Amino acid sequence: MRRNDEMTLGLFLRPAGHHEGSWRDPDVPAKGEVDIDHYAKLAALAEGAALHFIFLADTPSVIEQDYAAMARVSRTICFEPITLLSALSSRTQSIGLAATATTTYHQPYHLARMFASLDHLSGGRAAWNIVTSGHRFEAPNFGEEELPDHDTRYVRAKEFVRVVEGLWDSWEDDAFIRDKQSGVFVDTTKLHVLNHRGSCLSVRGPLNIARPPQGYPVLVQAGASDSGIQFAAEFGEVIFAAEPSLENGKRYYATIKEKARSFGREDSQVLIMPGIVPVIGTSKEEASEKLQRLHSYMHIDTLIGLASRVLGSVADLRSVDLDSFVPESLPQTNFFQSRQKVLLELAARHKLTWRDLIRLVAASRGHLMVVGTPDEVANIMVDTFDQRAADGFNVMPPTLPGGMTEFVGLVVPELRRRGKFRSRYSGQTLRENLGLKRPLNRFTRPIAE
Amino acid sequence: MRRNDEMTLGLFLRPAGHHEGSWRDPDVPAKGEVDIDHYAKLAALAEGAALHFIFLADTPSVIEQDYAAMARVSRTICFEPITLLSALSSRTQSIGLAATATTTYHQPYHLARMFASLDHLSGGRAAWNIVTSGHRFEAPNFGEEELPDHDTRYVRAKEFVRVVEGLWDSWEDDAFIRDKQSGVFVDTTKLHVLNHRGSCLSVRGPLNIARPPQGYPVLVQAGASDSGIQFAAEFGEVIFAAEPSLENGKRYYATIKEKARSFGREDSQVLIMPGIVPVIGTSKEEASEKLQRLHSYMHIDTLIGLASRVLGSVADLRSVDLDSFVPESLPQTNFFQSRQKVLLELAARHKLTWRDLIRLVAASRGHLMVVGTPDEVANIMVDTFDQRAADGFNVMPPTLPGGMTEFVGLVVPELRRRGKFRSRYSGQTLRENLGLKRPLNRFTRPIAE
Repeated sequence: MRRNDEMTLGLFLRPAGHHEGSWRDPDVPAKGEVDIDHYAKLAALAEGAALHFIFLADTPSVIEQDYAAMARVSRTICFEPITLLSALSSRTQSIGLAATATTTYHQPYHLARMFASLDHLSGGRAAWNIVTSGHRFEAPNFGEEELPDHDTRYVRAKEFVRVVEGLWDSWEDDAFIRDKQSGVFVDTTKLHVLNHRGSCLSVRGPLNIARPPQGYPVLVQAGASDSGIQFAAEFGEVIFAAEPSLENGKRYYATIKEKARSFGREDSQVLIMPGIVPVIGTSKEEASEKLQRLHSYMHIDTLIGLASRVLGSVADLRSVDLDSFVPESLPQTNFFQSRQKVLLELAARHKLTWRDLIRLVAASRGHLMVVGTPDEVANIMVDTFDQRAADGFNVMPPTLPGGMTEFVGLVVPELRRRGKFRSRYSGQTLRENLGLKRPLNRFTRPIAE
Repeated sequence: MRRNDEMTLGLFLRPAGHHEGSWRDPDVPAKGEVDIDHYAKLAALAEGAALHFIFLADTPSVIEQDYAAMARVSRTICFEPITLLSALSSRTQSIGLAATATTTYHQPYHLARMFASLDHLSGGRAAWNIVTSGHRFEAPNFGEEELPDHDTRYVRAKEFVRVVEGLWDSWEDDAFIRDKQSGVFVDTTKLHVLNHRGSCLSVRGPLNIARPPQGYPVLVQAGASDSGIQFAAEFGEVIFAAEPSLENGKRYYATIKEKARSFGREDSQVLIMPGIVPVIGTSKEEASEKLQRLHSYMHIDTLIGLASRVLGSVADLRSVDLDSFVPESLPQTNFFQSRQKVLLELAARHKLTWRDLIRLVAASRGHLMVVGTPDEVANIMVDTFDQRAADGFNVMPPTLPGGMTEFVGLVVPELRRRGKFRSRYSGQTLRENLGLKRPLNRFTRPIAE
């Protein structure tokens, strides 16, 4: 259903927008983080422009732990994503609903059920962004002292996804007969008990909900470490990458597609969608001023808290001169290895000071940021798409709803003028809209598959 | 906000209704179990009549395991309740949203978050029906061979509820300042880290969502065993009881209120709401015929499957003469001890055969069933209320939506005529509508409390 010459677009939702200082912007509602109407408005903006999905990140813990920094950021609290998207399923018609959930601290039975439920609630619009837990304060919320190490997390993640898929396959698509006359509701020969016993998980099944309308909700993945790339190539249907440079983006794109082919997967079934932060103005100067204004909203404690979090608290940033250059390497940590690497490469390439780097992180968190006119933003998106560094983008407006109103009103028309974005939904389900095949039930799949 | 001379009413939702044969009724939609529009219609019916809440049971497993019986029942699949109620929060304005979730196989951090999220999504209308897992096929879905024994489950349940309450108290009600001018978003002196280390659970906190609008979602409890009654008296604000007889109901009511007083709780803060199955006709004969018609929808395999499930598979019912009398006692099991006791008492009192008992179970599952005219149904409800065997009822229509349309259109007006039920919502939140106090945050509570 999707034309290959058109890009896919998602809206990455954060209550106030993606810039760390955005909540202080006059145009951002003060209490958006637990206001369903705020989210419904954002979803409506995205749906009005025929975007493919809205996307929610998630961490089951308060992220910031430096109280001085935490006092000044708005993202310590938010809705739980699956409940939020369930509510939004009743307020939207066509747009996909993508929620992040960790494989490290969830139970596969509960998670399989909730995503199946969301897929039924929305008529086939659910997506699951599969992650492993990377924040050290998640562990003690679930009875553990520390996070499992990086590789162990990926071993569990892989088994977890297979179990969840197996649970979604508990009932064949045509298992439910519902014949009032004969009194037969279900053909129990089409029920399959998983009986999984693996190295990390033991789950019997069957799931107590019919197979999701999409077969499986769309599987999103964002891994960028070696294990992450491997995982993405094997399971990811939408890959949410952080690729701030065109060369790296092209390399990453080629790597993933090639690895996916080695798993027998077609290029069209693996969509690479890096994040993009569009800072839009009527002129480049106006756009730059907007960015500077957002930067000015950040207190020094916010900057330091952010850097410590993203870079893994390895440098004692309170004693560092913020105007000195970032060193080329830092000790490796157990948290977000790949993101740290991207940022250090960026700093080295552009000769950034700590202050420059932290501001960049505050604005883009390692994603591609474009500061300019709608025309310039569209050009970079089209170029990135045409040069095969992206099949589409996960759009991360610096402020919300303002940044999305601008993107939808000014950039989307430019993309359409260039023939690179559709003007309406082509399918019913998210899979159809993304051009992704509906997976066959593993219990009815021909042996060859 | 609630008048003491008026009863509280909930609607216990099951896709096709509460009679085991209901899905074959011509008036019941064939695919209701995963149809959000079906549920939205039921919620609208209940809200239109100013009922206090809709209520969803839950078991994280397929309940039936005898395939012959399972083929003929509709309740093997359903929505996951918290996602369903999140969706319904966007389609309703005033009615409470009560979901069941087990303390045995959930993680308190996830559950505290989801209920807090639902409470924010709905503007303070969430309720949690606290249960322990009682179906043996739940255990293997969560990596365990067998359920923990009855008392062990209650030990965990108690600790679980205290942890969840503690997580809801992570942020004081006025912690979020959101002062754009000064850049201070939150007063971190009003953040409280739980740091719980108990015998069953270890949970650090804090929760990553603001305190629920209701302080805590309303706590519902349905325990009827000794540990269950103790638990209900300590924590339950709404007690969902199964009391088919007036004498037992009065005794149960007095016991719970007295035990609650021993925990320092006021009578008005503990609402006893037994289930009631109204089978309504323009005459008693018509109502009886309706019940017989529903009974006729049940195949022998359905009857036997149901009895095995509810009575704990202790009798080999395939070899039993269904027209013989039920014995006075059966060996005790680890499942639903209290429900089994209620049913055996019923059978003994009314000299029931196996077929009678199973049909009663199929229609009422041990709850009060009234077969008659709207006037007769209203009389029994008012009598039960006036004689202090109930503060209200959880209504379990035999078919849905038909049974609810009748209840709302015919019985509710009778209750109003007798001055026993309100005609509109008196408060904003479920707590206000039930007359329940908003709990203080444990970290700001005066010492005396």
